[in-house]
Amino acid sequence: MLDYPALAAVAAVVREGSFERAAAALAITPSAVSQRVRGLEERLGAILIVRGQPCEATELGRSLCAHLDQVRLLEHDLAPALGSTAAGAGDRLTLPVAVNADSLATWFPAAAAAFGRVADVSLDLTLDDEAHTANRLRAGEVMAAVTAEREPVQGCRTLSLGALRYAACASPEFVARYFARGITPQALEQAPCLRFDRRDFLQARWARAALGVERVGPVHWVPSTHGFLDMTLVGLGWGMHPCAMVEDRIAAGHLIELAPAHRVDVPLYWTVTRLHAAALNQLTQAVSTAAGEVLGR
Amino acid sequence: MLDYPALAAVAAVVREGSFERAAAALAITPSAVSQRVRGLEERLGAILIVRGQPCEATELGRSLCAHLDQVRLLEHDLAPALGSTAAGAGDRLTLPVAVNADSLATWFPAAAAAFGRVADVSLDLTLDDEAHTANRLRAGEVMAAVTAEREPVQGCRTLSLGALRYAACASPEFVARYFARGITPQALEQAPCLRFDRRDFLQARWARAALGVERVGPVHWVPSTHGFLDMTLVGLGWGMHPCAMVEDRIAAGHLIELAPAHRVDVPLYWTVTRLHAAALNQLTQAVSTAAGEVLGR
Repeated sequence: MLDYPALAAVAAVVREGSFERAAAALAITPSAVSQRVRGLEERLGAILIVRGQPCEATELGRSLCAHLDQVRLLEHDLAPALGSTAAGAGDRLTLPVAVNADSLATWFPAAAAAFGRVADVSLDLTLDDEAHTANRLRAGEVMAAVTAEREPVQGCRTLSLGALRYAACASPEFVARYFARGITPQALEQAPCLRFDRRDFLQARWARAALGVERVGPVHWVPSTHGFLDMTLVGLGWGMHPCAMVEDRIAAGHLIELAPAHRVDVPLYWTVTRLHAAALNQLTQAVSTAAGEVLGR
Repeated sequence: MLDYPALAAVAAVVREGSFERAAAALAITPSAVSQRVRGLEERLGAILIVRGQPCEATELGRSLCAHLDQVRLLEHDLAPALGSTAAGAGDRLTLPVAVNADSLATWFPAAAAAFGRVADVSLDLTLDDEAHTANRLRAGEVMAAVTAEREPVQGCRTLSLGALRYAACASPEFVARYFARGITPQALEQAPCLRFDRRDFLQARWARAALGVERVGPVHWVPSTHGFLDMTLVGLGWGMHPCAMVEDRIAAGHLIELAPAHRVDVPLYWTVTRLHAAALNQLTQAVSTAAGEVLGR
Protein backbone atom coordinates (compact mmCIF):
# COMPACT_ATOMS: atom_id res chain seq x y z
CA MET A 1 0.00 0.00 0.00
CA LEU A 2 0.99 3.61 -0.53
CA ASP A 3 1.90 5.68 2.50
CA TYR A 4 -1.33 7.70 2.71
CA PRO A 5 -0.36 10.09 5.52
CA ALA A 6 2.70 11.03 3.45
CA LEU A 7 0.57 11.36 0.33
CA ALA A 8 -1.86 13.60 2.24
CA ALA A 9 1.11 15.83 3.13
CA VAL A 10 2.12 16.01 -0.56
CA ALA A 11 -1.45 16.94 -1.52
CA ALA A 12 -1.62 19.61 1.19
CA VAL A 13 1.64 21.23 0.01
CA VAL A 14 0.38 21.26 -3.59
CA ARG A 15 -3.02 22.62 -2.54
CA GLU A 16 -1.65 25.30 -0.21
CA GLY A 17 1.45 26.16 -2.24
CA SER A 18 3.96 25.97 0.62
CA PHE A 19 5.18 23.60 3.35
CA GLU A 20 4.35 26.16 6.04
CA ARG A 21 0.71 26.58 5.01
CA ALA A 22 0.33 22.82 4.49
CA ALA A 23 1.56 22.33 8.06
CA ALA A 24 -1.01 24.82 9.36
CA ALA A 25 -3.77 23.08 7.39
CA LEU A 26 -2.78 19.65 8.70
CA ALA A 27 -2.11 20.98 12.21
CA ILE A 28 1.39 19.42 12.30
CA THR A 29 4.82 21.08 12.19
CA PRO A 30 6.47 22.14 8.91
CA SER A 31 9.35 19.77 9.60
CA ALA A 32 6.89 16.86 9.93
CA VAL A 33 5.41 17.79 6.56
CA SER A 34 8.87 18.00 5.07
CA GLN A 35 9.90 14.59 6.49
CA ARG A 36 6.77 12.87 5.18
CA VAL A 37 7.17 14.34 1.70
CA ARG A 38 10.88 13.58 1.49
CA GLY A 39 10.37 10.08 2.90
CA LEU A 40 7.80 9.24 0.23
CA GLU A 41 10.00 10.73 -2.48
CA GLU A 42 12.95 8.62 -1.33
CA ARG A 43 10.93 5.41 -1.22
CA LEU A 44 9.48 6.06 -4.69
CA GLY A 45 12.84 7.25 -6.02
CA ALA A 46 11.18 10.25 -7.64
CA ILE A 47 10.54 13.92 -6.96
CA LEU A 48 6.85 14.69 -6.29
CA ILE A 49 6.99 18.41 -5.59
CA VAL A 50 8.95 21.15 -7.32
CA ARG A 51 9.94 23.43 -4.45
CA GLY A 52 9.22 27.03 -5.42
CA GLN A 53 6.85 29.95 -4.95
CA PRO A 54 4.33 28.33 -5.06
CA CYS A 55 5.31 24.67 -4.67
CA GLU A 56 3.94 22.62 -7.57
CA ALA A 57 3.43 18.92 -8.21
CA THR A 58 5.55 17.03 -10.74
CA GLU A 59 3.67 14.87 -13.22
CA LEU A 60 3.97 11.85 -10.90
CA GLY A 61 2.99 14.06 -7.96
CA ARG A 62 -0.15 15.14 -9.81
CA SER A 63 -1.08 11.53 -10.59
CA LEU A 64 -0.67 10.57 -6.94
CA CYS A 65 -2.74 13.56 -5.75
CA ALA A 66 -5.47 12.62 -8.23
CA HIS A 67 -5.38 9.06 -6.89
CA LEU A 68 -5.64 10.41 -3.31
CA ASP A 69 -8.69 12.47 -4.33
CA GLN A 70 -10.37 9.33 -5.63
CA VAL A 71 -9.52 7.32 -2.52
CA ARG A 72 -10.87 10.11 -0.30
CA LEU A 73 -14.04 10.28 -2.34
CA LEU A 74 -14.64 6.55 -1.93
CA GLU A 75 -13.67 6.66 1.75
CA HIS A 76 -16.16 9.49 2.31
CA ASP A 77 -18.99 7.06 1.47
CA LEU A 78 -17.86 4.76 4.30
CA ALA A 79 -18.14 7.47 6.96
CA PRO A 80 -21.80 6.72 7.91
CA ALA A 81 -21.09 2.97 8.13
CA LEU A 82 -18.06 3.65 10.32
CA GLY A 83 -20.22 5.79 12.56
CA SER A 84 -17.73 8.64 12.33
CA THR A 85 -19.00 12.17 12.69
CA ALA A 86 -17.78 15.14 10.68
CA ALA A 87 -14.11 14.69 9.76
CA GLY A 88 -11.44 17.18 10.85
CA ALA A 89 -10.49 20.14 8.66
CA GLY A 90 -7.44 18.36 7.24
CA ASP A 91 -9.57 15.39 6.23
CA ARG A 92 -12.53 17.22 4.79
CA LEU A 93 -13.34 16.05 1.30
CA THR A 94 -12.76 18.61 -1.45
CA LEU A 95 -14.03 18.17 -5.00
CA PRO A 96 -11.95 19.97 -7.65
CA VAL A 97 -14.25 21.11 -10.48
CA ALA A 98 -13.59 23.21 -13.59
CA VAL A 99 -16.35 25.62 -14.66
CA ASN A 100 -16.52 27.96 -17.63
CA ALA A 101 -16.91 31.62 -16.71
CA ASP A 102 -20.34 32.13 -18.25
CA SER A 103 -21.77 29.15 -16.37
CA LEU A 104 -20.35 30.44 -13.09
CA ALA A 105 -22.04 33.77 -13.85
CA THR A 106 -25.44 32.25 -14.60
CA TRP A 107 -26.73 28.84 -13.48
CA PHE A 108 -23.79 27.27 -11.59
CA PRO A 109 -24.23 29.02 -8.19
CA ALA A 110 -27.69 27.42 -7.85
CA ALA A 111 -26.07 24.03 -8.49
CA ALA A 112 -23.34 24.69 -5.91
CA ALA A 113 -25.86 25.84 -3.30
CA ALA A 114 -28.07 22.78 -3.85
CA PHE A 115 -24.98 20.57 -3.53
CA GLY A 116 -23.86 22.43 -0.39
CA ARG A 117 -27.23 21.75 1.24
CA VAL A 118 -27.03 17.96 0.77
CA ALA A 119 -23.28 17.22 0.94
CA ASP A 120 -20.72 18.07 3.60
CA VAL A 121 -18.03 18.46 0.93
CA SER A 122 -15.98 21.48 -0.19
CA LEU A 123 -15.93 22.62 -3.79
CA ASP A 124 -12.64 23.75 -5.31
CA LEU A 125 -13.66 25.62 -8.45
CA THR A 126 -11.25 26.40 -11.26
CA LEU A 127 -12.21 28.82 -13.99
CA ASP A 128 -11.85 26.78 -17.08
CA ASP A 129 -10.40 28.07 -20.30
CA GLU A 130 -12.46 25.66 -22.28
CA ALA A 131 -9.70 24.34 -24.54
CA HIS A 132 -7.85 22.88 -21.55
CA THR A 133 -10.70 21.19 -19.71
CA ALA A 134 -10.11 17.77 -21.20
CA ASN A 135 -6.42 17.90 -20.32
CA ARG A 136 -7.22 18.93 -16.76
CA LEU A 137 -9.50 15.95 -16.39
CA ARG A 138 -6.88 13.65 -17.93
CA ALA A 139 -4.17 14.97 -15.62
CA GLY A 140 -6.48 14.44 -12.66
CA GLU A 141 -6.44 18.14 -11.69
CA VAL A 142 -10.23 18.19 -11.57
CA MET A 143 -12.80 15.43 -11.14
CA ALA A 144 -15.53 17.08 -13.18
CA ALA A 145 -15.91 19.96 -15.59
CA VAL A 146 -18.51 22.14 -17.24
CA THR A 147 -17.25 22.60 -20.75
CA ALA A 148 -18.35 24.13 -24.01
CA GLU A 149 -16.60 21.45 -26.04
CA ARG A 150 -17.83 17.90 -26.22
CA GLU A 151 -14.64 15.91 -26.00
CA PRO A 152 -14.61 12.32 -24.78
CA VAL A 153 -12.19 11.88 -21.86
CA GLN A 154 -11.03 8.43 -20.81
CA GLY A 155 -12.48 7.36 -17.49
CA CYS A 156 -15.19 10.02 -17.63
CA ARG A 157 -18.78 10.20 -18.78
CA THR A 158 -20.31 13.23 -20.49
CA LEU A 159 -23.83 14.59 -20.07
CA SER A 160 -25.38 17.19 -22.32
CA LEU A 161 -26.60 20.15 -20.25
CA GLY A 162 -28.42 22.06 -23.00
CA ALA A 163 -27.24 25.32 -24.48
CA LEU A 164 -26.41 28.76 -23.13
CA ARG A 165 -28.07 31.36 -25.37
CA TYR A 166 -26.30 34.64 -26.19
CA ALA A 167 -27.64 38.03 -27.31
CA ALA A 168 -25.69 40.85 -28.98
CA CYS A 169 -26.13 43.95 -26.81
CA ALA A 170 -24.92 47.53 -26.48
CA SER A 171 -25.78 50.54 -24.33
CA PRO A 172 -28.36 53.03 -25.68
CA GLU A 173 -25.64 55.75 -26.02
CA PHE A 174 -23.42 53.33 -27.91
CA VAL A 175 -26.26 52.43 -30.30
CA ALA A 176 -27.00 56.12 -30.87
CA ARG A 177 -23.35 56.80 -31.60
CA TYR A 178 -22.50 53.87 -33.89
CA PHE A 179 -25.78 52.41 -35.14
CA ALA A 180 -27.91 55.54 -35.66
CA ARG A 181 -28.36 54.54 -39.30
CA GLY A 182 -29.03 50.90 -38.53
CA ILE A 183 -26.90 47.85 -37.88
CA THR A 184 -25.13 47.63 -41.22
CA PRO A 185 -21.88 45.86 -42.12
CA GLN A 186 -20.28 49.31 -42.51
CA ALA A 187 -21.41 50.44 -39.06
CA LEU A 188 -20.18 47.16 -37.58
CA GLU A 189 -16.67 47.76 -38.94
CA GLN A 190 -16.51 51.08 -37.05
CA ALA A 191 -18.11 50.06 -33.75
CA PRO A 192 -15.71 48.76 -31.06
CA CYS A 193 -16.69 45.28 -29.90
CA LEU A 194 -15.72 43.25 -26.85
CA ARG A 195 -14.12 39.83 -26.94
CA PHE A 196 -13.57 37.62 -23.91
CA ASP A 197 -10.33 36.03 -25.14
CA ARG A 198 -8.63 34.63 -28.25
CA ARG A 199 -10.95 31.65 -28.35
CA ASP A 200 -14.08 33.76 -28.24
CA PHE A 201 -15.58 33.83 -31.74
CA LEU A 202 -19.19 34.51 -30.73
CA GLN A 203 -19.10 38.06 -32.12
CA ALA A 204 -18.04 36.85 -35.57
CA ARG A 205 -20.57 33.99 -35.40
CA TRP A 206 -23.35 36.46 -34.64
CA ALA A 207 -22.22 38.89 -37.38
CA ARG A 208 -22.27 36.06 -39.92
CA ALA A 209 -25.74 34.92 -38.82
CA ALA A 210 -27.26 38.39 -38.54
CA LEU A 211 -25.54 40.30 -41.35
CA GLY A 212 -23.72 37.72 -43.46
CA VAL A 213 -20.33 39.30 -42.69
CA GLU A 214 -17.45 38.21 -40.48
CA ARG A 215 -15.57 41.44 -40.15
CA VAL A 216 -16.22 43.29 -36.92
CA GLY A 217 -14.72 46.52 -35.65
CA PRO A 218 -11.81 47.22 -33.31
CA VAL A 219 -11.66 44.88 -30.33
CA HIS A 220 -11.32 45.45 -26.58
CA TRP A 221 -10.35 42.27 -24.70
CA VAL A 222 -12.15 41.72 -21.37
CA PRO A 223 -11.59 38.25 -19.87
CA SER A 224 -14.36 38.35 -17.23
CA THR A 225 -18.08 37.68 -17.72
CA HIS A 226 -19.28 40.43 -15.41
CA GLY A 227 -16.47 42.76 -16.52
CA PHE A 228 -17.70 42.18 -20.05
CA LEU A 229 -21.22 43.18 -19.04
CA ASP A 230 -20.06 46.20 -17.04
CA MET A 231 -17.94 47.39 -19.97
CA THR A 232 -20.96 47.08 -22.27
CA LEU A 233 -23.16 49.02 -19.82
CA VAL A 234 -20.65 51.89 -19.65
CA GLY A 235 -20.45 51.94 -23.47
CA LEU A 236 -16.91 50.72 -24.19
CA GLY A 237 -18.20 48.37 -26.90
CA TRP A 238 -20.94 45.96 -27.94
CA GLY A 239 -20.70 42.30 -26.99
CA MET A 240 -22.35 38.89 -26.80
CA HIS A 241 -23.95 38.19 -23.41
CA PRO A 242 -25.72 35.19 -21.91
CA CYS A 243 -29.44 36.03 -22.23
CA ALA A 244 -29.99 35.05 -18.59
CA MET A 245 -27.70 37.94 -17.56
CA VAL A 246 -29.13 40.66 -19.76
CA GLU A 247 -32.88 40.09 -20.07
CA ASP A 248 -33.63 42.38 -17.11
CA ARG A 249 -31.27 45.05 -18.46
CA ILE A 250 -32.87 44.93 -21.89
CA ALA A 251 -36.36 45.19 -20.35
CA ALA A 252 -35.22 48.17 -18.22
CA GLY A 253 -33.71 49.94 -21.25
CA HIS A 254 -30.11 49.81 -19.96
CA LEU A 255 -29.11 47.64 -22.90
CA ILE A 256 -30.41 47.37 -26.45
CA GLU A 257 -30.34 44.02 -28.21
CA LEU A 258 -28.85 44.53 -31.67
CA ALA A 259 -30.77 41.87 -33.56
CA PRO A 260 -33.27 39.98 -31.39
CA ALA A 261 -33.96 37.46 -34.17
CA HIS A 262 -30.35 36.30 -34.13
CA ARG A 263 -29.36 34.80 -30.83
CA VAL A 264 -26.46 32.34 -30.70
CA ASP A 265 -26.55 29.00 -28.84
CA VAL A 266 -23.49 27.43 -27.21
CA PRO A 267 -24.01 23.79 -26.11
CA LEU A 268 -22.60 22.90 -22.68
CA TYR A 269 -21.54 19.54 -21.28
CA TRP A 270 -20.81 18.03 -17.87
CA THR A 271 -17.86 15.65 -17.95
CA VAL A 272 -17.36 13.73 -14.75
CA THR A 273 -15.03 10.99 -13.48
CA ARG A 274 -16.64 7.51 -13.65
CA LEU A 275 -16.52 6.65 -9.98
CA HIS A 276 -19.40 5.34 -7.95
CA ALA A 277 -19.23 7.88 -5.13
CA ALA A 278 -22.14 9.65 -3.46
CA ALA A 279 -20.59 13.13 -3.57
CA LEU A 280 -20.02 12.95 -7.34
CA ASN A 281 -23.55 11.71 -7.92
CA GLN A 282 -25.01 14.46 -5.72
CA LEU A 283 -23.02 17.10 -7.61
CA THR A 284 -24.04 15.68 -10.99
CA GLN A 285 -27.66 15.72 -9.86
CA ALA A 286 -27.43 19.34 -8.65
CA VAL A 287 -25.68 20.43 -11.87
CA SER A 288 -28.22 18.71 -14.05
CA THR A 289 -31.18 20.24 -12.20
CA ALA A 290 -29.79 23.80 -12.09
CA ALA A 291 -28.70 23.68 -15.74
CA GLY A 292 -32.14 22.40 -16.74
CA GLU A 293 -33.78 25.49 -15.26
CA VAL A 294 -31.63 27.98 -17.18
CA LEU A 295 -30.34 26.26 -20.32
CA GLY A 296 -32.58 25.39 -23.25
CA ARG A 297 -32.43 21.72 -24.25
CA MET B 1 16.53 48.91 -38.35
CA LEU B 2 14.30 45.95 -37.50
CA ASP B 3 11.97 44.66 -40.20
CA TYR B 4 8.74 46.11 -38.74
CA PRO B 5 6.24 44.53 -41.15
CA ALA B 6 7.74 41.15 -40.27
CA LEU B 7 7.65 42.02 -36.58
CA ALA B 8 3.99 43.02 -36.93
CA ALA B 9 3.32 39.58 -38.41
CA VAL B 10 5.04 37.93 -35.43
CA ALA B 11 2.97 40.03 -33.01
CA ALA B 12 -0.26 39.17 -34.86
CA VAL B 13 0.47 35.44 -34.70
CA VAL B 14 1.17 35.68 -30.97
CA ARG B 15 -1.91 37.81 -30.36
CA GLU B 16 -4.28 35.66 -32.43
CA GLY B 17 -2.70 32.30 -31.61
CA SER B 18 -2.43 30.99 -35.17
CA PHE B 19 -0.99 31.95 -38.57
CA GLU B 20 -4.44 31.69 -40.20
CA ARG B 21 -6.11 34.10 -37.79
CA ALA B 22 -3.12 36.45 -37.94
CA ALA B 23 -3.48 36.49 -41.73
CA ALA B 24 -7.17 37.36 -41.42
CA ALA B 25 -6.40 40.15 -38.93
CA LEU B 26 -3.67 41.62 -41.18
CA ALA B 27 -5.72 41.04 -44.36
CA ILE B 28 -2.84 39.18 -46.07
CA THR B 29 -2.49 35.49 -46.94
CA PRO B 30 -1.32 32.90 -44.39
CA SER B 31 1.70 32.12 -46.59
CA ALA B 32 2.68 35.80 -46.56
CA VAL B 33 2.51 35.75 -42.74
CA SER B 34 4.57 32.58 -42.66
CA GLN B 35 7.21 34.02 -45.04
CA ARG B 36 7.58 37.21 -42.98
CA VAL B 37 7.92 35.35 -39.71
CA ARG B 38 10.38 32.78 -41.09
CA GLY B 39 12.36 35.49 -42.87
CA LEU B 40 12.81 37.47 -39.65
CA GLU B 41 13.71 34.32 -37.72
CA GLU B 42 16.37 33.44 -40.32
CA ARG B 43 17.90 36.91 -40.28
CA LEU B 44 18.00 36.96 -36.48
CA GLY B 45 19.16 33.36 -36.29
CA ALA B 46 16.59 32.61 -33.60
CA ILE B 47 13.11 31.14 -33.24
CA LEU B 48 10.51 33.78 -32.29
CA ILE B 49 7.36 31.67 -32.24
CA VAL B 50 6.78 28.18 -30.85
CA ARG B 51 4.35 26.67 -33.37
CA GLY B 52 1.52 25.00 -31.49
CA GLN B 53 -2.11 25.29 -30.45
CA PRO B 54 -1.99 28.17 -29.72
CA CYS B 55 1.24 29.60 -31.17
CA GLU B 56 3.30 31.28 -28.45
CA ALA B 57 6.25 33.66 -28.43
CA THR B 58 9.71 32.55 -27.32
CA GLU B 59 11.46 34.78 -24.80
CA LEU B 60 13.11 36.74 -27.61
CA GLY B 61 9.78 36.85 -29.45
CA ARG B 62 8.13 38.35 -26.37
CA SER B 63 10.84 40.99 -26.04
CA LEU B 64 10.42 41.97 -29.68
CA CYS B 65 6.62 42.13 -29.36
CA ALA B 66 6.99 44.33 -26.28
CA HIS B 67 9.34 46.58 -28.25
CA LEU B 68 6.80 46.74 -31.11
CA ASP B 69 4.08 47.76 -28.61
CA GLN B 70 6.27 50.64 -27.44
CA VAL B 71 7.10 51.75 -30.99
CA ARG B 72 3.41 51.67 -31.92
CA LEU B 73 2.53 53.66 -28.84
CA LEU B 74 5.05 56.38 -29.73
CA GLU B 75 4.03 56.28 -33.39
CA HIS B 76 0.40 56.74 -32.39
CA ASP B 77 1.27 60.21 -31.07
CA LEU B 78 2.55 61.21 -34.51
CA ALA B 79 -0.74 60.40 -36.25
CA PRO B 80 -2.25 63.91 -35.88
CA ALA B 81 0.96 65.57 -37.14
CA LEU B 82 1.03 63.22 -40.13
CA GLY B 83 -2.57 64.13 -40.88
CA SER B 84 -3.56 60.46 -41.02
CA THR B 85 -7.11 59.52 -40.10
CA ALA B 86 -8.10 56.42 -38.16
CA ALA B 87 -5.64 53.63 -38.86
CA GLY B 88 -6.75 50.29 -40.35
CA ALA B 89 -7.74 47.38 -38.13
CA GLY B 90 -4.32 45.72 -38.40
CA ASP B 91 -2.63 48.92 -37.28
CA ARG B 92 -4.93 49.91 -34.47
CA LEU B 93 -3.08 50.53 -31.26
CA THR B 94 -3.79 48.04 -28.46
CA LEU B 95 -2.72 48.59 -24.86
CA PRO B 96 -2.15 45.38 -22.87
CA VAL B 97 -3.11 45.97 -19.23
CA ALA B 98 -3.30 43.61 -16.23
CA VAL B 99 -6.15 44.21 -13.75
CA ASN B 100 -6.97 42.41 -10.53
CA ALA B 101 -10.40 40.79 -10.48
CA ASP B 102 -11.89 42.91 -7.70
CA SER B 103 -10.91 46.15 -9.47
CA LEU B 104 -12.48 44.93 -12.70
CA ALA B 105 -15.64 44.21 -10.72
CA THR B 106 -15.78 47.64 -9.07
CA TRP B 107 -14.11 50.83 -10.29
CA PHE B 108 -12.15 49.80 -13.40
CA PRO B 109 -15.03 49.80 -15.95
CA ALA B 110 -15.55 53.54 -15.30
CA ALA B 111 -11.84 54.09 -16.02
CA ALA B 112 -12.01 52.05 -19.23
CA ALA B 113 -15.12 53.92 -20.42
CA ALA B 114 -13.54 57.31 -19.71
CA PHE B 115 -10.43 56.20 -21.60
CA GLY B 116 -12.55 54.88 -24.50
CA ARG B 117 -14.22 58.29 -24.84
CA VAL B 118 -10.94 60.20 -25.25
CA ALA B 119 -8.63 57.67 -26.95
CA ASP B 120 -9.07 55.69 -30.16
CA VAL B 121 -7.10 52.81 -28.66
CA SER B 122 -8.08 49.21 -27.82
CA LEU B 123 -7.62 47.78 -24.34
CA ASP B 124 -6.38 44.21 -23.98
CA LEU B 125 -7.17 43.33 -20.38
CA THR B 126 -5.59 40.40 -18.58
CA LEU B 127 -6.95 39.23 -15.26
CA ASP B 128 -3.99 39.50 -12.99
CA ASP B 129 -3.13 36.95 -10.37
CA GLU B 130 -1.45 39.59 -8.30
CA ALA B 131 1.76 37.69 -7.58
CA HIS B 132 2.65 37.66 -11.27
CA THR B 133 1.96 41.28 -12.19
CA ALA B 134 5.52 42.45 -11.78
CA ASN B 135 6.84 39.60 -13.92
CA ARG B 136 4.32 40.37 -16.64
CA LEU B 137 5.46 43.97 -16.70
CA ARG B 138 9.13 42.90 -16.77
CA ALA B 139 8.50 40.44 -19.60
CA GLY B 140 6.73 43.18 -21.53
CA GLU B 141 3.45 41.24 -21.67
CA VAL B 142 1.55 44.23 -20.33
CA MET B 143 2.34 47.95 -20.31
CA ALA B 144 0.49 48.75 -17.12
CA ALA B 145 -1.08 46.91 -14.21
CA VAL B 146 -3.44 47.40 -11.29
CA THR B 147 -1.91 45.44 -8.49
CA ALA B 148 -2.42 44.78 -4.84
CA GLU B 149 1.29 44.51 -4.21
CA ARG B 150 3.60 47.46 -4.30
CA GLU B 151 6.62 46.12 -6.08
CA PRO B 152 9.03 48.39 -7.91
CA VAL B 153 9.46 47.35 -11.56
CA GLN B 154 12.36 48.61 -13.63
CA GLY B 155 11.26 51.06 -16.30
CA CYS B 156 7.91 51.64 -14.61
CA ARG B 157 6.47 54.16 -12.21
CA THR B 158 3.99 53.29 -9.48
CA LEU B 159 1.05 55.39 -8.26
CA SER B 160 -0.91 54.69 -5.13
CA LEU B 161 -4.63 54.37 -5.95
CA GLY B 162 -5.98 54.16 -2.40
CA ALA B 163 -7.46 51.05 -0.84
CA LEU B 164 -10.29 48.71 -1.68
CA ARG B 165 -12.31 48.06 1.48
CA TYR B 166 -13.77 44.61 2.23
CA ALA B 167 -16.67 43.52 4.41
CA ALA B 168 -17.34 40.02 5.76
CA CYS B 169 -20.82 39.02 4.59
CA ALA B 170 -23.20 36.08 4.54
CA SER B 171 -26.81 35.46 3.54
CA PRO B 172 -29.51 35.81 6.25
CA GLU B 173 -30.23 32.03 6.08
CA PHE B 174 -26.54 31.28 6.47
CA VAL B 175 -26.29 33.58 9.52
CA ALA B 176 -29.37 31.93 11.05
CA ARG B 177 -27.86 28.47 10.48
CA TYR B 178 -24.30 29.05 11.64
CA PHE B 179 -24.24 32.24 13.71
CA ALA B 180 -27.54 32.02 15.59
CA ARG B 181 -25.60 32.24 18.89
CA GLY B 182 -23.33 35.01 17.69
CA ILE B 183 -20.13 35.20 15.71
CA THR B 184 -17.85 33.26 18.01
CA PRO B 185 -14.56 31.51 17.24
CA GLN B 186 -16.38 28.18 17.70
CA ALA B 187 -19.12 29.11 15.22
CA LEU B 188 -16.48 30.32 12.77
CA GLU B 189 -14.77 26.92 12.79
CA GLN B 190 -18.01 25.25 11.70
CA ALA B 191 -19.24 27.77 9.10
CA PRO B 192 -18.06 27.15 5.51
CA CYS B 193 -16.19 30.14 4.13
CA LEU B 194 -15.27 31.16 0.60
CA ARG B 195 -11.74 31.84 -0.63
CA PHE B 196 -10.88 33.26 -4.02
CA ASP B 197 -7.61 31.38 -4.44
CA ARG B 198 -4.52 30.17 -2.57
CA ARG B 199 -3.22 33.71 -2.20
CA ASP B 200 -6.43 35.00 -0.67
CA PHE B 201 -5.89 35.47 3.05
CA LEU B 202 -8.54 38.14 3.61
CA GLN B 203 -10.78 35.76 5.57
CA ALA B 204 -8.02 34.93 8.04
CA ARG B 205 -7.03 38.62 8.27
CA TRP B 206 -10.60 39.55 9.12
CA ALA B 207 -10.95 36.72 11.66
CA ARG B 208 -7.78 37.88 13.39
CA ALA B 209 -8.97 41.50 13.49
CA ALA B 210 -12.56 40.78 14.51
CA LEU B 211 -12.19 37.75 16.80
CA GLY B 212 -8.48 37.38 17.49
CA VAL B 213 -8.40 33.93 15.86
CA GLU B 214 -6.96 32.70 12.57
CA ARG B 215 -8.76 29.41 12.22
CA VAL B 216 -11.76 29.53 9.89
CA GLY B 217 -14.08 26.71 8.84
CA PRO B 218 -14.14 24.48 5.77
CA VAL B 219 -13.32 26.31 2.55
CA HIS B 220 -15.01 26.46 -0.85
CA TRP B 221 -12.72 27.88 -3.56
CA VAL B 222 -14.40 30.29 -6.01
CA PRO B 223 -11.94 32.15 -8.28
CA SER B 224 -14.33 34.81 -9.61
CA THR B 225 -15.41 38.05 -7.91
CA HIS B 226 -19.04 37.89 -8.98
CA GLY B 227 -19.13 34.11 -8.59
CA PHE B 228 -17.92 34.70 -5.05
CA LEU B 229 -20.78 37.13 -4.43
CA ASP B 230 -23.37 34.87 -6.07
CA MET B 231 -22.20 31.91 -3.97
CA THR B 232 -22.54 34.05 -0.82
CA LEU B 233 -26.04 35.17 -1.81
CA VAL B 234 -27.18 31.55 -2.32
CA GLY B 235 -25.70 30.60 1.05
CA LEU B 236 -22.76 28.35 0.14
CA GLY B 237 -20.49 30.19 2.57
CA TRP B 238 -19.50 33.52 4.08
CA GLY B 239 -16.85 35.62 2.39
CA MET B 240 -14.99 38.93 2.15
CA HIS B 241 -16.48 41.28 -0.46
CA PRO B 242 -15.52 44.71 -1.76
CA CYS B 243 -17.85 47.11 0.08
CA ALA B 244 -18.69 48.83 -3.21
CA MET B 245 -20.28 45.57 -4.41
CA VAL B 246 -22.30 44.72 -1.33
CA GLU B 247 -23.53 47.95 0.24
CA ASP B 248 -26.81 47.82 -1.69
CA ARG B 249 -27.30 44.14 -0.82
CA ILE B 250 -26.68 44.81 2.86
CA ALA B 251 -29.14 47.72 2.83
CA ALA B 252 -31.74 45.53 1.07
CA GLY B 253 -31.29 42.72 3.60
CA HIS B 254 -29.95 40.19 1.07
CA LEU B 255 -26.65 40.06 2.92
CA ILE B 256 -25.72 40.54 6.55
CA GLU B 257 -22.37 42.04 7.46
CA LEU B 258 -20.77 39.87 10.13
CA ALA B 259 -18.84 42.55 12.02
CA PRO B 260 -19.38 46.06 10.61
CA ALA B 261 -16.68 47.49 12.87
CA HIS B 262 -14.02 45.30 11.26
CA ARG B 263 -13.61 46.04 7.60
CA VAL B 264 -10.33 45.17 5.91
CA ASP B 265 -8.41 47.53 3.57
CA VAL B 266 -6.30 46.32 0.64
CA PRO B 267 -4.09 49.04 -0.90
CA LEU B 268 -3.98 49.12 -4.70
CA TYR B 269 -1.32 50.48 -7.03
CA TRP B 270 -1.05 51.44 -10.69
CA THR B 271 2.28 50.46 -12.21
CA VAL B 272 2.85 51.81 -15.69
CA THR B 273 5.67 51.79 -18.24
CA ARG B 274 7.71 55.01 -18.19
CA LEU B 275 7.09 56.17 -21.74
CA HIS B 276 5.97 59.62 -22.73
CA ALA B 277 3.00 58.60 -24.85
CA ALA B 278 -0.42 60.24 -24.91
CA ALA B 279 -2.41 56.98 -24.70
CA LEU B 280 -0.58 55.87 -21.54
CA ASN B 281 -1.08 59.27 -19.95
CA GLN B 282 -4.78 59.27 -20.83
CA LEU B 283 -5.21 55.82 -19.34
CA THR B 284 -3.31 56.76 -16.19
CA GLN B 285 -5.51 59.85 -15.84
CA ALA B 286 -8.72 57.82 -16.30
CA VAL B 287 -7.53 55.16 -13.81
CA SER B 288 -6.56 57.75 -11.24
CA THR B 289 -9.91 59.57 -11.50
CA ALA B 290 -12.09 56.44 -11.41
CA ALA B 291 -10.12 54.93 -8.54
CA GLY B 292 -10.39 58.18 -6.61
CA GLU B 293 -14.18 58.01 -6.70
CA VAL B 294 -14.40 54.48 -5.26
CA LEU B 295 -11.24 53.82 -3.26
CA GLY B 296 -10.56 55.49 0.05
CA ARG B 297 -7.20 57.31 0.17
